[in-house]
Amino acid sequence: MHFSIVHRDKGSAARTGKIVTAHGEIDTPVFMPVGTGGTVKAVHQRELANDLNARIILGNTYHLYLRPGIDIIRKAGGLHKFMQWDRAILTDSGGYQVYSLSGIRKLTSEGALFSSHIDGSRHLFTPEKIVDIQRIIGADIIMALDECAPFPCDHTAAAKSIELTHQWLARGFEHFSRTSPEYGYEQSFFPIVQGSVHPDLREASAVEIAKYPADGYAIGGLSVGEPEDTIYEMTGIVTGILPDDKPRYLMGVGTPVNLLEAISLGIDLFDCVMPTRNGRNGMLFTRNGIMNMRNNKWKDDFSPVDSDSSCFVDQNYSKAYLRHLMISGEILGAQIASLHNLSFYLWLMAEARSQIKSGNFTEWKSVMIKQLARRL
Amino acid sequence: MHFSIVHRDKGSAARTGKIVTAHGEIDTPVFMPVGTGGTVKAVHQRELANDLNARIILGNTYHLYLRPGIDIIRKAGGLHKFMQWDRAILTDSGGYQVYSLSGIRKLTSEGALFSSHIDGSRHLFTPEKIVDIQRIIGADIIMALDECAPFPCDHTAAAKSIELTHQWLARGFEHFSRTSPEYGYEQSFFPIVQGSVHPDLREASAVEIAKYPADGYAIGGLSVGEPEDTIYEMTGIVTGILPDDKPRYLMGVGTPVNLLEAISLGIDLFDCVMPTRNGRNGMLFTRNGIMNMRNNKWKDDFSPVDSDSSCFVDQNYSKAYLRHLMISGEILGAQIASLHNLSFYLWLMAEARSQIKSGNFTEWKSVMIKQLARRL
Repeated sequence: MHFSIVHRDKGSAARTGKIVTAHGEIDTPVFMPVGTGGTVKAVHQRELANDLNARIILGNTYHLYLRPGIDIIRKAGGLHKFMQWDRAILTDSGGYQVYSLSGIRKLTSEGALFSSHIDGSRHLFTPEKIVDIQRIIGADIIMALDECAPFPCDHTAAAKSIELTHQWLARGFEHFSRTSPEYGYEQSFFPIVQGSVHPDLREASAVEIAKYPADGYAIGGLSVGEPEDTIYEMTGIVTGILPDDKPRYLMGVGTPVNLLEAISLGIDLFDCVMPTRNGRNGMLFTRNGIMNMRNNKWKDDFSPVDSDSSCFVDQNYSKAYLRHLMISGEILGAQIASLHNLSFYLWLMAEARSQIKSGNFTEWKSVMIKQLARRL
Repeated sequence: MHFSIVHRDKGSAARTGKIVTAHGEIDTPVFMPVGTGGTVKAVHQRELANDLNARIILGNTYHLYLRPGIDIIRKAGGLHKFMQWDRAILTDSGGYQVYSLSGIRKLTSEGALFSSHIDGSRHLFTPEKIVDIQRIIGADIIMALDECAPFPCDHTAAAKSIELTHQWLARGFEHFSRTSPEYGYEQSFFPIVQGSVHPDLREASAVEIAKYPADGYAIGGLSVGEPEDTIYEMTGIVTGILPDDKPRYLMGVGTPVNLLEAISLGIDLFDCVMPTRNGRNGMLFTRNGIMNMRNNKWKDDFSPVDSDSSCFVDQNYSKAYLRHLMISGEILGAQIASLHNLSFYLWLMAEARSQIKSGNFTEWKSVMIKQLARRL
């Protein structure tokens, strides 16, 4: 993987860049649609490529390991072939899912013992096994096993937690270095900074993680319940320490406003379930604010879903029609809302890149964050 | 609406034809994808037009009347504009839905009193009101209000039932004749033959219905639990009586085998929820038989969903991937299966037309019905 910085914003730490992977180039800052179980919910791969022009999507090691299982993915020749997606993929290590989904979780220096949210079966993720699984999944970017601390988490517990994350990283990085890709193309391994909401621990974790000669670095354990300002504070501490010439990935964040603020702090990659999950529930993000499509006010508004967008769903369908689909629980409602929101998130990133390039990012951001948070 | 017969099969009553509507031409025999509430479930309108080349779809008066409601559809300028579908639409009258969905149903000579399956509210459908509603929906082909008798239904009850259906038809037809389209383009009104599984009543109903100078005629009340041979027996009786030079529509039928048998009896139009509903549950129809995609046998079958089909879902995705989506309850599974099944149904109709044209229909049908019913 190769990363190069293309433009820098004068008024902030924002930058544009280009990541070159074995499955194509990615302009950064970039948003990765979440395809948890090998599918971005309610969206065809053809739509991801042709309508959204997504360059990279995310899969989840935890989900794919449980279903369809690693033997199936190996026989398919990796996740790209299994789901017929020939652009880049990043897989999350499963640390967050073990934290958020598993009923039982026991963390030891050996690894994370957990019970499946599907059938209760017990499984152990070790730092080495997580690398092996992601070798078989074959994502272009794979993540280290980490402990995602709950929120709130006191200083003592958070300090102990990053110690475990750092131990696991040492083992995972060594195992990654000693193993080879399954399918002939290069994979990159990203360590993850943790440390909850404690500035000194975030700093210590970033210093430790930055010691590894990785292709990129991630920030985990944020957007788990803490105030928004804390997300920015922690992110700013970490981006000030991580190598400037490598991509930085803020995991699981967030709202459109979160993304713009994090870009200004020097973040390059994002993923979040919000555009698809909230979309399925009827929440649409637009450049003018947020619409709840179940609201009665749209019932006879026959204007396009989003006249500012060139995505086919925004131009073809009306607000009144989408409201009808949402109220009726029709699958097409989830399809339209997911496409709209992903299209908007990807537009927001493209626009941010353009504003950084032209030197207007900070000014543009201050206008946008007022608009984006409005309720329409 | 104009209908012309193009070819006739020598060995059966099968024929090909062309229906010209205000929203385009339709080659018959034709299958109409069911878009109950103004959406063919899990399928974008763009896919219906570009990938499936559907020429006509079906909407349900009962559902659309309850949700979004007639005032919304009127304000939208009709269902075509509301759902952004510029090809032909047929709306069912609601007789079947009042029978199958409504908790309370009281039929009088005045009309059908029923309670909404959504909120229990009471509504009255009269033969005149059903015409008015369908004028506002603006479908190209609209249906008379009928009573769909339950199965089984004894001779006395069925005789009484067709009497009501015929009374309602007289009023509906007159009301249709005295009213005008809402949106400037022509609408056609189809009466419906009933009579349960009693040959003499089916005959009497067909004779009565055929008296009306309609653009086409429908057969209702079949495929409600009776044996398959009875469907064919009743259909054959009715098609022998209905005008030969008008299109005949067999409502709510059925499996691929049902369609081919009914074509041989002279049926021109079909609709059925089976391709979409069964598809969402993992059942795929193919020219080689039926696949249950939840079956373990597909788990590592990486061949295309259907290598005989040119539809993008059949070529792009594998059986193993589709099985994974179905087992995981992913929306994309419903999307793929719905597109596959509709693509197959529309291919089957196109192939039937081609075989009728070339004079091989009966021979081809006898081979196909053995293949189609197999379990793969």
